Amino acid sequence: MPGSSADGQRPRVVIVGAGFAGLSVAKRLARAPVDITLIDRENHHLFQPLLYQVATAGLSPADIAWPIRSLVRDQRNTSVLLGAVTGVDCVQKRVIMAHHHIGYDVLVLATGATHGYFGNDSWAAHAPGLKTIDDATEIRRRLLLAFECAEMESDARERERLLTIVIVGGGPTGVELAGAVVELARKALAADFRSIDPQQTHVLLVEAGPRLLPGFPEPLSSHAERALRRVGVDVRLQKAVTHCSATGVTLGDESVSAGTVIWAAGIVASPAVNWLAVAGDRVGRVLVGPDLRPPGMDDVFVIGDTALVQDVAGKPLPGIAPVAKQQGAYVAEAIKAHLAGKTALPPFRYRDRGLLATVGRKTAVIAFGRLRLKGWFAWWIWGIAHVYFLISVRNRLIVVTQWLWSYVSYERGARLITGMRTKSRFFD
Amino acid sequence: MPGSSADGQRPRVVIVGAGFAGLSVAKRLARAPVDITLIDRENHHLFQPLLYQVATAGLSPADIAWPIRSLVRDQRNTSVLLGAVTGVDCVQKRVIMAHHHIGYDVLVLATGATHGYFGNDSWAAHAPGLKTIDDATEIRRRLLLAFECAEMESDARERERLLTIVIVGGGPTGVELAGAVVELARKALAADFRSIDPQQTHVLLVEAGPRLLPGFPEPLSSHAERALRRVGVDVRLQKAVTHCSATGVTLGDESVSAGTVIWAAGIVASPAVNWLAVAGDRVGRVLVGPDLRPPGMDDVFVIGDTALVQDVAGKPLPGIAPVAKQQGAYVAEAIKAHLAGKTALPPFRYRDRGLLATVGRKTAVIAFGRLRLKGWFAWWIWGIAHVYFLISVRNRLIVVTQWLWSYVSYERGARLITGMRTKSRFFD
Repeated sequence: MPGSSADGQRPRVVIVGAGFAGLSVAKRLARAPVDITLIDRENHHLFQPLLYQVATAGLSPADIAWPIRSLVRDQRNTSVLLGAVTGVDCVQKRVIMAHHHIGYDVLVLATGATHGYFGNDSWAAHAPGLKTIDDATEIRRRLLLAFECAEMESDARERERLLTIVIVGGGPTGVELAGAVVELARKALAADFRSIDPQQTHVLLVEAGPRLLPGFPEPLSSHAERALRRVGVDVRLQKAVTHCSATGVTLGDESVSAGTVIWAAGIVASPAVNWLAVAGDRVGRVLVGPDLRPPGMDDVFVIGDTALVQDVAGKPLPGIAPVAKQQGAYVAEAIKAHLAGKTALPPFRYRDRGLLATVGRKTAVIAFGRLRLKGWFAWWIWGIAHVYFLISVRNRLIVVTQWLWSYVSYERGARLITGMRTKSRFFD
Repeated sequence: MPGSSADGQRPRVVIVGAGFAGLSVAKRLARAPVDITLIDRENHHLFQPLLYQVATAGLSPADIAWPIRSLVRDQRNTSVLLGAVTGVDCVQKRVIMAHHHIGYDVLVLATGATHGYFGNDSWAAHAPGLKTIDDATEIRRRLLLAFECAEMESDARERERLLTIVIVGGGPTGVELAGAVVELARKALAADFRSIDPQQTHVLLVEAGPRLLPGFPEPLSSHAERALRRVGVDVRLQKAVTHCSATGVTLGDESVSAGTVIWAAGIVASPAVNWLAVAGDRVGRVLVGPDLRPPGMDDVFVIGDTALVQDVAGKPLPGIAPVAKQQGAYVAEAIKAHLAGKTALPPFRYRDRGLLATVGRKTAVIAFGRLRLKGWFAWWIWGIAHVYFLISVRNRLIVVTQWLWSYVSYERGARLITGMRTKSRFFD
């Protein structure tokens, strides 16, 4: 890792991606004698753990997103660049964008991951995933429009199809979405229609593996499954989606007609592995060493969901915020240590911060080392932890207000169908 | 006005438009023995007076919008229909939609108005107006992207163009937008960029007439103009826009290069005047009598911005929420009186509720009969009145939180660029 750039300037640190990992590097280098360029395709940092609540009309996008510029406003050593990176030139040490090249001395790739369709990319149109604000408002639009269409539909079979929602993937996103969708349909919308009864909404949660929340201890998986079944979610385990179309999904030999399909399965890392021409795993994560660098690369760190990092037992670390943040902190320390002429840091070790997931309205599951929590107490911890990790007092106040309101009234505060005129059959 | 439908059922009241006027009719008929169908192209009722704050990143869309269904949830006599009306068949007494016909006994047209380009509809692409949530997020996107593009622009002249914002129209919307845009640029964004100085943003407010806020008493117009000039708005009176393009506007013999142009001038009523084949004014408003019905039509009311109604002095009533609401209340009373077999109501009379407009951060103007207020006291009244008229405690709490936060920190809480991937040069 070079200590300074070729022309004697301060070392240029280029960070691609302002998610939990990338932002964490930038924040921790605030006072380091480096010039940081932080590049992202969006103008905002997103608190992804609550994105499912935007998709289900509980929160507004701005409640869980912050302009990246304002987050690093006071770091005079940091510039923010809005745009998409298309490649990395490791020889000339520069990042390639549509209209720019950005030279680097140290490169940090924290470009994240997206949902994967196991090679069936044509399914994306029928089964949107949930990674960005635009994804969330698109899913919200589809969910709310399905009820509107059903209200006007005279054919009983088509009405039933419109009121069927399939969520593919039984990980935390799928589980949290399923709970929230049921609550939206059966509580918030319950009394709002005249021809249909939203209580009849059929929510399927489809998981290819043998249990929900595969990353959690087995008893918590069972708890989540029971809790979802109790509120009416049709949990289907060991069922893989074999086809997606505009009218539903196929699960092996069963065909399910559905008005809305949401994809929360599979993961595909960003193309960073191709940019660097290094080894990746099956889903495109870059294999990095215990120093979070790809083997043989001195000046490139790969962190967050872009990297495959194993814990001491050889198990891959989960794609969650605490892992990303700790890796960001480690990289910042490594860069500072190098600048100070110190020897290399000890290998990265993840300190477990637990796994959390809500399951519907009043219960959650938490696995923290040997500690396992479930039920309302876990749900409170989940809520407090998530509010705590929001940035700024304003967002905390607003999220708490929205939550209290929803809790008391069963209302969802952001039931807006937007972007409709260009897309809807109502205006053909 | 027929007392009941042909087949002896309860009279069918069809209301087109769930803005202030249409919603007011529906709410006041909650307990009347009628069957109401409330039709709107959007799923939400919008508090338009604060829409400029969504466009300038101060509020989130859901803070000022409510699902129409939830607003009339408890009225069992009311159904809500999402969709666009394309015409009215006055002979067969039915409203025509893309896939439906809706029969009526009494029809209320409250379809509102939109901005008009004086016959130059091609300008719309370059100078979006502000009537819907999608309009507001589009304007927000353009404003914020202009700063992002400027930050990356190396050509000084192009940078200057990108940092020029033209607002066309000196009515309340234009005046409020100008104040908010200046505050966004000079306060919220001030420290967030490295290559550009948002303080250098040039905001032009262009008005074809001799003064701002033409509906207000002259001294308040002067106050607004002085207040805007003081914060740096370049107010151009008696200047008409003669051309709009992707790179700016032409004002007679002056060409102004601009990165963002917002259209707050002109008004065009909805096509209701064509649906009914009745007389309209220059901008398509239906001429109605003092009973809010077009002459000779017994079973059709036209209210809100769709109608031209004159006060006792023969002056047209302004297109503001109190006028729309009072007209809605009048129509509901007229329908109830008729059902009760009473004689016709006395003519509609508007009770003045005042004219209000904010001018930037700490001042407002209010005209209420002979009373004229300006300055910080008017600004407080403006704020309290607007919070008061929001629906639901939740929205009041959230808007007050956002406002207090913005007031103290100068931050704007909703600085999100959304819908970008499909539209931006960053991803070409």
